[in-house]
Amino acid sequence: MATRVTDGNHQGLVAGVDLGGTKIQTIVVQGTEILGQARVPTPGHGAEPITAAIIETVRVALDAAGADPSSLRSVGIGAPGRAKDGVVSNSPNVVGMQEPFPLGPKVSLELGGVPVHVDNDVTVATMGELERGAGRPFDSMLGVFVGTGVGGGLVFDRRVWHGRGAAAEIGHTVVKPEGRPCGCGGRGHLESYAGRASMQAKAERLVAQGEHTALFDLMAKHGRDRMTSGIIERALAHGDTMTERLMDQAVWALGVALASAQNLLDVEAIIVGGGLAERFGRSFVDRIAAQMRPLLFSPDHPPAVLPAELGDLSGAMGAIVLAGG
Amino acid sequence: MATRVTDGNHQGLVAGVDLGGTKIQTIVVQGTEILGQARVPTPGHGAEPITAAIIETVRVALDAAGADPSSLRSVGIGAPGRAKDGVVSNSPNVVGMQEPFPLGPKVSLELGGVPVHVDNDVTVATMGELERGAGRPFDSMLGVFVGTGVGGGLVFDRRVWHGRGAAAEIGHTVVKPEGRPCGCGGRGHLESYAGRASMQAKAERLVAQGEHTALFDLMAKHGRDRMTSGIIERALAHGDTMTERLMDQAVWALGVALASAQNLLDVEAIIVGGGLAERFGRSFVDRIAAQMRPLLFSPDHPPAVLPAELGDLSGAMGAIVLAGG
Repeated sequence: MATRVTDGNHQGLVAGVDLGGTKIQTIVVQGTEILGQARVPTPGHGAEPITAAIIETVRVALDAAGADPSSLRSVGIGAPGRAKDGVVSNSPNVVGMQEPFPLGPKVSLELGGVPVHVDNDVTVATMGELERGAGRPFDSMLGVFVGTGVGGGLVFDRRVWHGRGAAAEIGHTVVKPEGRPCGCGGRGHLESYAGRASMQAKAERLVAQGEHTALFDLMAKHGRDRMTSGIIERALAHGDTMTERLMDQAVWALGVALASAQNLLDVEAIIVGGGLAERFGRSFVDRIAAQMRPLLFSPDHPPAVLPAELGDLSGAMGAIVLAGG
Repeated sequence: MATRVTDGNHQGLVAGVDLGGTKIQTIVVQGTEILGQARVPTPGHGAEPITAAIIETVRVALDAAGADPSSLRSVGIGAPGRAKDGVVSNSPNVVGMQEPFPLGPKVSLELGGVPVHVDNDVTVATMGELERGAGRPFDSMLGVFVGTGVGGGLVFDRRVWHGRGAAAEIGHTVVKPEGRPCGCGGRGHLESYAGRASMQAKAERLVAQGEHTALFDLMAKHGRDRMTSGIIERALAHGDTMTERLMDQAVWALGVALASAQNLLDVEAIIVGGGLAERFGRSFVDRIAAQMRPLLFSPDHPPAVLPAELGDLSGAMGAIVLAGG
């Protein structure tokens, strides 16, 4: 059991919360050291239960750190959708948070008035990689997170570019006009090919057309209702040709979208994170870089294309950075 | 004849030079007032004759302003390709300037040591629109110049983003994988559909396949060897269906590339300049905006899409801004 330290030693305690569609991941740090962690499934029935769950993870992580809630200096939260002044909106993947919700003020109130900073989850993950991960050596970078969807974060001169509040939607780059349907209602987007939700929908359509795959048997066997990166890895290990094809198409789409983005932005580095990058690491990222190369305007001067370093903790660590930790 | 004013009145005289593939356009300004102009065809046989022609335009423009060369405070030059410390390189469209050439120092030497600032022509045109044109009200913008090729300029927080020196190559956004050939050696780029050189090459291929068009007759009639925006306008006035189709495809490609760019950048404004925008103005730009709309991630929050205001003088006026004028 961790020794309970006095509050005096925790003046620098900061909590970082990564609010995802499936889980809430929270860490408590002092300086660069992670002192405590907590993780719970995201409640599926509204903003208030989500707020309560976030507060519970902060308390559990503080307890794991052997610290008192009163020792908390600030909290950062990365949340899906848009965030302005602590109010979260447009979070289609989090049940009950489609309407604007004052997540920051609510969490602050429950935690005794501690400052709470909220920003978009992918923006926050990009900040994590910039300050504590693979982005450290670079002044400009594009963060790309390949998960259920595909999100991005832009950094110029070591500052995150927000645009008017909705920048870096790299997942909605058109890679094939009138191509595969996208969750956003559009067609032929990067996310239509590289987002796991779209890949799963495509696999379902192919099966309905009579094609064979081990994907759904593997999902059933491992008790999954979603085509996770772990399921994809297992299917590839079984030599499943549909999965190989879906992955080839995901890499192709990433190559097209990231090459066009690089031709526009000319950043020093592209950092690729999210489930597929965590699972397949350098080999996945190298395939994307190889796909990009012939499409670059300056193929002899490509950006560094690197896997994210913080893995599953990009978001929570970015939330620490957001909170000034 | 302009009255010859004394040097004392010209402490603020600045020259702006727009070095293009076909012409050199130079203006001399004091404050925001254009006092003199000069324009000559770009010499087609090397860097030294181009340098001499630039110097000649500066002298002629100064003379038109009734000013002495010694009254010149600084010179700005927008040049194709890359520019660093006054050295121009990668200028494929200017004969004799493919190899690195110290244009800034050479022009400075010939003009008695006056400071000469050189930057990429499209970057400079974007600066012109930002400071003196349609970009004035905006903090962030994407400038797109649709001419022989398609170039761009990026502005975040009212500062031009250069990347590592080659940013804003919006013309080399992939709009159709494995689509039309591009002058850069790639395929399916925005420039493959909206650059006039590529449009002309496509028209030539269609004619070779037996299709009919008034384009080449009109070029011959008007003594043009290039499919200028004026020729395109005349062909459209004749109801030339091939030209209509080429323009539809150009607008389509601009819509796809600019929507993807907007989804990534979320800028306040997209300013469209170059020959086609000058010729067709608001109606051309509105067609592009309409094409973009359904492809935007936030279709209810589109950027302002506006024609450039400075027309033919975007580049020269931007060069004035570059030179601190």
